[in-house]
Amino acid sequence: MTTRPQERKAVGVDPDIKARNLKRLRRNEGQVRGLQKMVSEDRYCADVLTQISAVHEALRAVGRELMRNHLKHCAASAIRSSEHEAGVMYDELVDLMYTHSR
Amino acid sequence: MTTRPQERKAVGVDPDIKARNLKRLRRNEGQVRGLQKMVSEDRYCADVLTQISAVHEALRAVGRELMRNHLKHCAASAIRSSEHEAGVMYDELVDLMYTHSR
Amino acid sequence: MTTRPQERKAVGVDPDIKARNLKRLRRNEGQVRGLQKMVSEDRYCADVLTQISAVHEALRAVGRELMRNHLKHCAASAIRSSEHEAGVMYDELVDLMYTHSR
Amino acid sequence: MTTRPQERKAVGVDPDIKARNLKRLRRNEGQVRGLQKMVSEDRYCADVLTQISAVHEALRAVGRELMRNHLKHCAASAIRSSEHEAGVMYDELVDLMYTHSR
Repeated sequence: MTTRPQERKAVGVDPDIKARNLKRLRRNEGQVRGLQKMVSEDRYCADVLTQISAVHEALRAVGRELMRNHLKHCAASAIRSSEHEAGVMYDELVDLMYTHSR
Repeated sequence: MTTRPQERKAVGVDPDIKARNLKRLRRNEGQVRGLQKMVSEDRYCADVLTQISAVHEALRAVGRELMRNHLKHCAASAIRSSEHEAGVMYDELVDLMYTHSR
Repeated sequence: MTTRPQERKAVGVDPDIKARNLKRLRRNEGQVRGLQKMVSEDRYCADVLTQISAVHEALRAVGRELMRNHLKHCAASAIRSSEHEAGVMYDELVDLMYTHSR
Repeated sequence: MTTRPQERKAVGVDPDIKARNLKRLRRNEGQVRGLQKMVSEDRYCADVLTQISAVHEALRAVGRELMRNHLKHCAASAIRSSEHEAGVMYDELVDLMYTHSR
């Protein structure tokens, strides 16, 4: 597969973290299929809502690992390279934290 | 399939809402598979994190529909039946809102 | 003081809850003043951020009590009165939960 | 005033950001007093809840500025100094993002 230009790559992903995240995301997929089953069986809404919040929690755990990896590799490398690149990175990080990561 | 005792049922689920929620959850499953692909291809962490927040947003849309349905049917019926049942329902709703639904 | 037309009133506020909420909000005001002191003394950002999250938590505790009161009085009364008023209330509640209460 | 040992200091706070944050926090204090007034006047719960979410939003704006400053100064300096200090900083940042900053 050719890398499309918009497909930016991560640098220095720890293979353990990658494996752990993939495992988590596969469990996550199962949780979402579980939600479909609950909805198609007309399960009690409050129970489905509780299960939805478990999926949010699991996604946040993946996000947390990715964020730590991002700080350790991409962010650290930008911060160490130049004031300009560091500044762009701070803005990106703050956006991720306050806009996206919830 | 026999209903296990812990499987509480929803009452009065609108078939349109049910269909819409199932459609959304299937798209959601696709998004989670997309995340697995991004992680296995070492895509840039910030892009994966942005995609994770799209999944959170999509799940919240499902939660919102379920919550509205829950209010309209289960909650309204409890609130109309007795002070005791209404009180139990208020506690459940407040818990769902502040503990689970984020 | 004359009530301006846009000032909608709560019905049936429990005096204990009201007193507890006022007490909490006064403590909250103190917390915000504490934040000002921390910022003017150039306290470590992470410590200020941790304190900010304590203020969020305290505000959520007030919100939770208000929401329970809202469900018990205004919402219950709308739900018991007519299908139309109930429907307007469900929309308002879902908006409060998913848009405002975070 | 003597600095107590637990009072860690921020380094390199931009005076403009500091002034802006103090201004925001004073407005914030006014908002919390406005909430007290609303509660003591028995204002409609949904209106108070909407106002509470405005306070959350305003606090997040302060947090955002502090976080950017934290990244630019304390975090960047730790990341540039040693692998060990950088590692401690990544953990602190991820904690702030996922545990505290909401």
